[in-house]
Amino acid sequence: MGRVYNFSAGPAVLPEEVLKEAAEEMLDYKGTGMSVMEMSHRSKAFENIIQEAEADLRDLMNIPDNYKVLFLQGGASQQFAAIPMNLMKNKVADYIITGSWSKKAYQEAKIYGQANVLASSEDKTFSYIPDCSDLPVSENADYVYICENETIYGNKIKKLPNTKGKPLVADISSCFLSEPIDVTKYGLLFGGAQKNVGSAGVVIVIIREDLITEDTLPGTPTMLKYKIHADNHSLYNTPPAYGIYICGKVFKWLKKIGGLEAIKERNEKKAAILYDYLDQSKLFKGTVEKKDRSLMNVPFVTGDAELDAKFVAEAKAAGFENLKGHRTVGGMRASIYNAMPIEGVEKLVEFMKKFEKENLK
Amino acid sequence: MGRVYNFSAGPAVLPEEVLKEAAEEMLDYKGTGMSVMEMSHRSKAFENIIQEAEADLRDLMNIPDNYKVLFLQGGASQQFAAIPMNLMKNKVADYIITGSWSKKAYQEAKIYGQANVLASSEDKTFSYIPDCSDLPVSENADYVYICENETIYGNKIKKLPNTKGKPLVADISSCFLSEPIDVTKYGLLFGGAQKNVGSAGVVIVIIREDLITEDTLPGTPTMLKYKIHADNHSLYNTPPAYGIYICGKVFKWLKKIGGLEAIKERNEKKAAILYDYLDQSKLFKGTVEKKDRSLMNVPFVTGDAELDAKFVAEAKAAGFENLKGHRTVGGMRASIYNAMPIEGVEKLVEFMKKFEKENLK
Repeated sequence: MGRVYNFSAGPAVLPEEVLKEAAEEMLDYKGTGMSVMEMSHRSKAFENIIQEAEADLRDLMNIPDNYKVLFLQGGASQQFAAIPMNLMKNKVADYIITGSWSKKAYQEAKIYGQANVLASSEDKTFSYIPDCSDLPVSENADYVYICENETIYGNKIKKLPNTKGKPLVADISSCFLSEPIDVTKYGLLFGGAQKNVGSAGVVIVIIREDLITEDTLPGTPTMLKYKIHADNHSLYNTPPAYGIYICGKVFKWLKKIGGLEAIKERNEKKAAILYDYLDQSKLFKGTVEKKDRSLMNVPFVTGDAELDAKFVAEAKAAGFENLKGHRTVGGMRASIYNAMPIEGVEKLVEFMKKFEKENLK
Repeated sequence: MGRVYNFSAGPAVLPEEVLKEAAEEMLDYKGTGMSVMEMSHRSKAFENIIQEAEADLRDLMNIPDNYKVLFLQGGASQQFAAIPMNLMKNKVADYIITGSWSKKAYQEAKIYGQANVLASSEDKTFSYIPDCSDLPVSENADYVYICENETIYGNKIKKLPNTKGKPLVADISSCFLSEPIDVTKYGLLFGGAQKNVGSAGVVIVIIREDLITEDTLPGTPTMLKYKIHADNHSLYNTPPAYGIYICGKVFKWLKKIGGLEAIKERNEKKAAILYDYLDQSKLFKGTVEKKDRSLMNVPFVTGDAELDAKFVAEAKAAGFENLKGHRTVGGMRASIYNAMPIEGVEKLVEFMKKFEKENLK
């Protein structure tokens, strides 16, 4: 069969030309006579791959020189521990809870010190973003933590919180490279690669140099110390080399199509097609407050669990994959990351219209 | 150019048919219309991949039902911390030091409790394996630790230590699946995949169920808890999915060629070709005591650093890659893992003979 439209929340659709190149280079990367999977991570060829990946990411995101870029393992979940272990000098941190991922990060931080809930939208099933313009940030907070785009609930923090001078730490896993951001507003940004950036098994940490110190909590594993990875340019031990190679190809693809300004425009256009339809549909409705909607993850429901299941099944049969909502919330969710083509969303909306006509009582 | 003979110590050569299959399936895995890299880790297709990989590994290694198989991230280096964090109930462990990797593991364990050096061969640059038949194992040791095959020094523990009833923990990264072993002799085995098993970014832990408890050291990150991964069948968070898929293909390849008995025979044959030549060469000599030589990593020297460098350069030009010894020890090292074909070793020895003739004074 041909390629499907894959609305998976992650791992997720990748640019077809990235996959084609990877397939072509699988047995012989650029005349080296070997696959990238077979290369010593200390070889010149791999050094070039990781250095180019970093340079392209710096270029795309306009990352200042006083920030380090680290290619690590263990996913965002491992960062939930690494962040307090490296940053909690006063053992105090403030968390803004806007979904499952920020909540998980908060719970992990409680192992290491006093983690406070600075704001939360759990009262309305994370269907909105709380006002973060004047929150009571703890005087001795080591950082303020957000998950900028909550994949499961489909909300997005569009105005960064006022951290009152404390470093802002942000999980950007599901909005990574989806639009330009001002890196200088953050102390630490991180994201799993398996949504917008590459393949699972790589997590990228972008951290301001002054936050990288030897002074981590007692008992911090060497592999969780930012300083170790920064000092060794992400080559302290064997890195997830093939995943980094795929990330590098995605960065080049993004640069080729015009960078983050261009992809933002495309993403806004794609999201608008879906949201505009949802806003006038009599069968489907979006679940997040308009002002707080994610450009990447679009949850929606019919209000009838049986009808939801019927929709997911019929959509799958028609070549629209992974539209089922997360197991914890139900309904549907269309993740429309960078690599989802506009026509994928257009065709999905066509299909939804047809389904609406057939199923509206 | 064609494929080279790649003697890298890891990441290392993979079976060509594994790479070919991966290339063919890159855009559409078995009619799913997507790459394995794009698949939800909760999808039926990926569930099949990880379950089959586990079943094939259990079959190959004859892993008993009371052992769990975990596909994790962070490499062996992360296990150096995870092992004490999970197993050090009495905060005491005994380490046998036979090279850089066991030494690193020992140093990491010291963060978490009393790690003792039970035996060491550092006195002779790790060129031999100490007698481990009657060591003074600590009465309250939580485990005895070995690195069964030291990649850098090229030695191998052929007779497992007498642990006097304590669980044996073994890093088998560079002898993983190179020959049959008796899993019941171990409490925990682990190895990075990037040598004999698959691609970098996957570490496999095989652990006896009674060693998996909730009772980990305070401050253990959730991602480092064996119980979390065991309870979630390695799907607590997004796993290194593509790497696991490659491991699964290598397992199938091994089964097809006859399993671990067959590969052991092949490995012994390959190693003998190289060692037999080294033992009669007047230019090159092996660096490890005969009885303790690794089947996988064969270090050798000429005794003249300049001549070593000349050899490495000429070998590279002739299509023999990555023969330079580890940066910490110099000389040469040929890693001849499972996927290195016999003719690769034969041709290397031919080349060495020619070099010997040209350079012997």
